[in-house]
Amino acid sequence: MAYGLKCRGLDVLVIEMAPQVLPRFLDPDMAEIVQKYLEREGIKIILSKPLEKIVGKERVEAVCVDGKLYDADMVIMATGVRPNIELAKKAGCKIGRFAIEVNEKMQTSIPNIYAVGDCVEVVDFITGEKTLSPFGTTAVRQGKVAGKNIAGVEAKFYPVLNSAVSKIGELEIGGTGLTAFSANLKRIPIVIGRAKALTRARYYPGGKEIEIKMIFNEDGKVVGCQIVGGERVAERIDAMSIAIFKGVTADELANMEFCYAPPVSMVHEPLSLAAEDALKKLEK
Amino acid sequence: MAYGLKCRGLDVLVIEMAPQVLPRFLDPDMAEIVQKYLEREGIKIILSKPLEKIVGKERVEAVCVDGKLYDADMVIMATGVRPNIELAKKAGCKIGRFAIEVNEKMQTSIPNIYAVGDCVEVVDFITGEKTLSPFGTTAVRQGKVAGKNIAGVEAKFYPVLNSAVSKIGELEIGGTGLTAFSANLKRIPIVIGRAKALTRARYYPGGKEIEIKMIFNEDGKVVGCQIVGGERVAERIDAMSIAIFKGVTADELANMEFCYAPPVSMVHEPLSLAAEDALKKLEK
Repeated sequence: MAYGLKCRGLDVLVIEMAPQVLPRFLDPDMAEIVQKYLEREGIKIILSKPLEKIVGKERVEAVCVDGKLYDADMVIMATGVRPNIELAKKAGCKIGRFAIEVNEKMQTSIPNIYAVGDCVEVVDFITGEKTLSPFGTTAVRQGKVAGKNIAGVEAKFYPVLNSAVSKIGELEIGGTGLTAFSANLKRIPIVIGRAKALTRARYYPGGKEIEIKMIFNEDGKVVGCQIVGGERVAERIDAMSIAIFKGVTADELANMEFCYAPPVSMVHEPLSLAAEDALKKLEK
Repeated sequence: MAYGLKCRGLDVLVIEMAPQVLPRFLDPDMAEIVQKYLEREGIKIILSKPLEKIVGKERVEAVCVDGKLYDADMVIMATGVRPNIELAKKAGCKIGRFAIEVNEKMQTSIPNIYAVGDCVEVVDFITGEKTLSPFGTTAVRQGKVAGKNIAGVEAKFYPVLNSAVSKIGELEIGGTGLTAFSANLKRIPIVIGRAKALTRARYYPGGKEIEIKMIFNEDGKVVGCQIVGGERVAERIDAMSIAIFKGVTADELANMEFCYAPPVSMVHEPLSLAAEDALKKLEK
């Protein structure tokens, strides 16, 4: 939104209460790449401070942050999503810690009521804990599972990695599985692998920078990945989702066969380089 | 080469002895997409006929195909690659059916001689048979394995899928694992899944067509994939290489979590759609 409005010629100020942009999506170090890009594009960013007050009578005139006033003609609030569970509650469906409880078939506690989408709880693939997965793709997959089961075809909804991708201007930003931040929060020991590379052969025109942060558990299995780059991020995230889902190790990723042609990749696939980097630390 | 020369304004005629373009890389149905594209770009293609004769005295004047003469100023021969094994032979290294024999460490039959690259035989991941893998990426990975072993660090070279990608004009073309053609040749029973989709949300500008052919074995495990599309093919091939390597099933792929954002993908990932298509046939 900030980038879109900046492109339309507006002065944009982002006020983020967390100490980084995209706090639920990226680790601070990866978020910094996005922040610097936005700042280069002329967007002002204030971190670690809440919006204190919206000032104005008939219409907004300013916002107050950290005791200071900033002129404003428009305020856009993006404070997260909360599941709408009222209807399910009224129907008597069991509500869990975060949202409506469902089983693998997307069935609520009332057998002939199914629920899918942002309003249900899902299982986190890595931690096995209940979580939310407010993504369109999750809803689509859940809808298919519910539909099949209602029609008498058995189908299961798998635990989620909460894979996501976004495009902000010239940056493509993706993540799947555990972040280092959430691993630390849950006291899960991890090893990190990093790579900084190009999306095409060094001599080929149009190549963009790409940065990868890969998270491994103590057994050397990949459990998370974040990528920020100029192109070809989404499918790499998808490859990593498959890798996490199947317990691929750093050694396997470092030796994995990746296809190569100068206009579309480097001889050394950055995903392999990140795995190699982690491998060095894992072997210690 | 044909496309490059056409772009430089030359009249180009491709004479291919096989009944399709890219015969070692794609199945005939997928190769047809590439052929039609090249023909739309003005390249003439003759299939199923060998080049009979090059006509000319001081310099080339014409080529003869099927008894007919075609004027020509230049002839480019692209008749495949053959491993250069002379040096190894002279050194007394054991030569296999196709090339130099090496073990997983890239060691030849003479323990202190290692060999890597187009000149060695490798193991096919799907069939377990010896094969060639004349790709730069294979050589790079083999070089790393040989280097480590020579330096006293144990490392193994994995069997190959022969993943490859190419870009011809606006088409990106990729393949990994078994083709339907080679499966039939080896009498391996397979089930095929197909999908035709777009690379971005339907309403988002710049989306390109993408066609996927996915090959599964009787157990429903993916063993091959070919993709032809306008963008984002290479990383999808890489995702499928990981899937083949880890024995991912059609059911798992159909339910896999793929990331989504309108500028970079569709809500229904084409890889999932192809797996769903195969699943219907596998469930029969």
